[in-house]
Amino acid sequence: MRFLTNRRMFVLLAVMGVYAGYSLAFASGGGGNADSGAGHGGPVLEVLLELIVILLAAKLGGDLLERFKQPAVLGELIMGIVIGNLHLLGFDLFEPFKVNVPLEILAEIGVIILLFEVGLESTVKEMMKVGLASFMVAVFGVIAPFFLGWGVGILFLPEESTLVHVFIGAALTATSVGITARVLQDIGKINTREAKIILGAAVIDDILGLVILAVVAGIITAAASGSGDGISSAQVLWIIAKAVLFIVGAIVIGSIILPAYFKFGFVLRGKGVFLSFCLLVCFLLAFLAGKVGLAPIVGAFAAGLILEEVQYKDFRDRGEHQVEELIAPIAIFLVPIFFVRMGMMVDLVTFTHVQILGFAAVMTVAAIIGKQACSLAIFDRTINRFAIGLGMIPRGEVGLIFAGIGAKLVLDGHPVVSSSTYSAVVIMVIVTTLVTPPALKVSLLRGEKKKNNEK
Amino acid sequence: MRFLTNRRMFVLLAVMGVYAGYSLAFASGGGGNADSGAGHGGPVLEVLLELIVILLAAKLGGDLLERFKQPAVLGELIMGIVIGNLHLLGFDLFEPFKVNVPLEILAEIGVIILLFEVGLESTVKEMMKVGLASFMVAVFGVIAPFFLGWGVGILFLPEESTLVHVFIGAALTATSVGITARVLQDIGKINTREAKIILGAAVIDDILGLVILAVVAGIITAAASGSGDGISSAQVLWIIAKAVLFIVGAIVIGSIILPAYFKFGFVLRGKGVFLSFCLLVCFLLAFLAGKVGLAPIVGAFAAGLILEEVQYKDFRDRGEHQVEELIAPIAIFLVPIFFVRMGMMVDLVTFTHVQILGFAAVMTVAAIIGKQACSLAIFDRTINRFAIGLGMIPRGEVGLIFAGIGAKLVLDGHPVVSSSTYSAVVIMVIVTTLVTPPALKVSLLRGEKKKNNEK
Repeated sequence: MRFLTNRRMFVLLAVMGVYAGYSLAFASGGGGNADSGAGHGGPVLEVLLELIVILLAAKLGGDLLERFKQPAVLGELIMGIVIGNLHLLGFDLFEPFKVNVPLEILAEIGVIILLFEVGLESTVKEMMKVGLASFMVAVFGVIAPFFLGWGVGILFLPEESTLVHVFIGAALTATSVGITARVLQDIGKINTREAKIILGAAVIDDILGLVILAVVAGIITAAASGSGDGISSAQVLWIIAKAVLFIVGAIVIGSIILPAYFKFGFVLRGKGVFLSFCLLVCFLLAFLAGKVGLAPIVGAFAAGLILEEVQYKDFRDRGEHQVEELIAPIAIFLVPIFFVRMGMMVDLVTFTHVQILGFAAVMTVAAIIGKQACSLAIFDRTINRFAIGLGMIPRGEVGLIFAGIGAKLVLDGHPVVSSSTYSAVVIMVIVTTLVTPPALKVSLLRGEKKKNNEK
Repeated sequence: MRFLTNRRMFVLLAVMGVYAGYSLAFASGGGGNADSGAGHGGPVLEVLLELIVILLAAKLGGDLLERFKQPAVLGELIMGIVIGNLHLLGFDLFEPFKVNVPLEILAEIGVIILLFEVGLESTVKEMMKVGLASFMVAVFGVIAPFFLGWGVGILFLPEESTLVHVFIGAALTATSVGITARVLQDIGKINTREAKIILGAAVIDDILGLVILAVVAGIITAAASGSGDGISSAQVLWIIAKAVLFIVGAIVIGSIILPAYFKFGFVLRGKGVFLSFCLLVCFLLAFLAGKVGLAPIVGAFAAGLILEEVQYKDFRDRGEHQVEELIAPIAIFLVPIFFVRMGMMVDLVTFTHVQILGFAAVMTVAAIIGKQACSLAIFDRTINRFAIGLGMIPRGEVGLIFAGIGAKLVLDGHPVVSSSTYSAVVIMVIVTTLVTPPALKVSLLRGEKKKNNEK
């Protein structure tokens, strides 16, 4: 590789090594710093060190994987896994990164900005066009993994009650769209119809997951307390109503309020009003989505969808940049934090539990195969159906949240989700996250080639 | 004011009010959210709410003050004071904002980005040119407030020992350059010679403050322990050496390492490498500055100074934007958080302590008059000397840190800095922060008018 032959790089890395050593020497000095009369410092220094390590790792990882023709996001994940597991080799300087709350928040804001950016690429109208397809994809992609997961539960935990099996099925349902969105962006396919169908399906998927979680957790709580009072259908309806109200509310904001909102912003003096007003829409909808129980990224995506140039034409006429251009630098700064940190949270020790690996492998296969049912929902032959199934594969946060709730629910004196089941879910999440970027890239680029050949 | 006549605005604000009410209803629901089966949420929602309130307040405050021909930053501070003191009227929804660590970190990153941005406007060479002037300004601006503060201590606390008086003098020395930098930026004067002298002086000022703090705290600790072992001159030299080494190191990085560093970055694939590499320089120097006991913003400013276009010419030739353009959106997002939060930390109750107000008033006058000595250090009549004295007025963090350390040091059975002295320092910090923006703006714009008339 060309850059490795660059002699200057060695000088550079050597100097950086010395600098890093210097930093660490001081860092390990810790409390001594305050004694020596330092007037500054505090928690911000820890975060700065984390940002330095993460940004550098992200760029090096992204470069390496792009050389292997893989999406940059996979490089960020892998670098994160390396950083997060160096403690296995006795190097535990990076361990505090995992529990640093400000870093977690920066990562979360990063993925919110990413989905906002992705939403900006589409309009509500375009999403409506693929609405039925997205809905079908979401429904198929929830039903198939649910029953497959149920089956896996029966197979591996035959002595457990049906509720436990149902819970495993439920944990396999919800797609985590961050990875897919990033891959689509990395390979320049965010504007394809496939991308829009996947993103729309992910939103609906999130609503369905919310309902399933409420129902299943409600039934189990009722069974555990023996009261027989399950979750009422009124409660389920209220959960659905809140989510739907949110989506409808967002569209109403988009069509009715935003033009007036930007008109108001336009008369405000001071710099940065335009970008700030766009960020406000993003953060408000992300916040409200979170408050109704949806993922904040669903709100951020909706915010991106409803923002249209016609609403802020005044700003554009004044010579302001496009929202996309203004958001890009913020995304460059914050988005990699999310993916590197996601990699850091992967605990490789999980993979050494041999007795769990079989369960995990079958569960992972169920999770992957299950989402391939999505392609059955697409009747239009011009669409790359296979890519849609692949794009729906990643499970993340939601699967872990399901498993976490299950671990806390007690039935017949032991938790619904045992620690080995939990580990299997974790492995499933890791594997589905890591297989998606290369698979999706190959499928979309091959599909493109085929189309070109047919022409 | 024109925008108030805009009927649509009322509709808009009404709708936003309903939305806010909706959010708050959910927010106050708190724990109930998890019970209802929400799959998402957590600490990020709190931060999102804070960002919404702060960004909106910043833009509204900035607009209002610009209409009164004041710098936008003053509006951000005032809106912060309002938000931070609404609890006095029984509305305490915003109280958690003050203790939210992730928000504090976002604010700190904001001011780091601001000083990086300001540093980018100058080069090391330009700073060298005003180096002597900056040095003299810093020295005068440290000595005068130090002795004035000492005198104020004798006047108001005659029964206390000399060490206490010295401590009060020390707390008045260090300039907090964030406000001044932002005002200079708001009024478009960041490129003037006056601006460069002030910024250079603030860096040197920070080093001097560090040394004074070490010496004074060392002497008091020694006096308190009765051991007679004060801080040794070797220790003081080491503190100075670390700070100077840092500054020299930064310049060496700039001239020797950065060209190779950007050459290395240039061969990396993936998007956002250029901006990431610039941010890495900023964060690394901010981190190292913090580690040697200087303010992280001094490091960020140095990072901005040493970055020159010639180092990253390759990127520019490839069509990348200027660093300044890429940093601007990040600054628009994060910088207001710092100033609104700074306003939020102002506790208006402090001003109701009548018995302290006299002490505070005299201390504030000493702090302001003291820095006017800076203008005596400037012999060049073409420079607006008055503006330089005004630009050095703001005291912030460092004054509070001094006072905080003094509050923890015990001498003759009671703290060196009593709670009333501490309150007086707090009032001094608030007033110097708030008077600077209007005073500096008037002075610089009037000076400009005069120059134009003379032509």
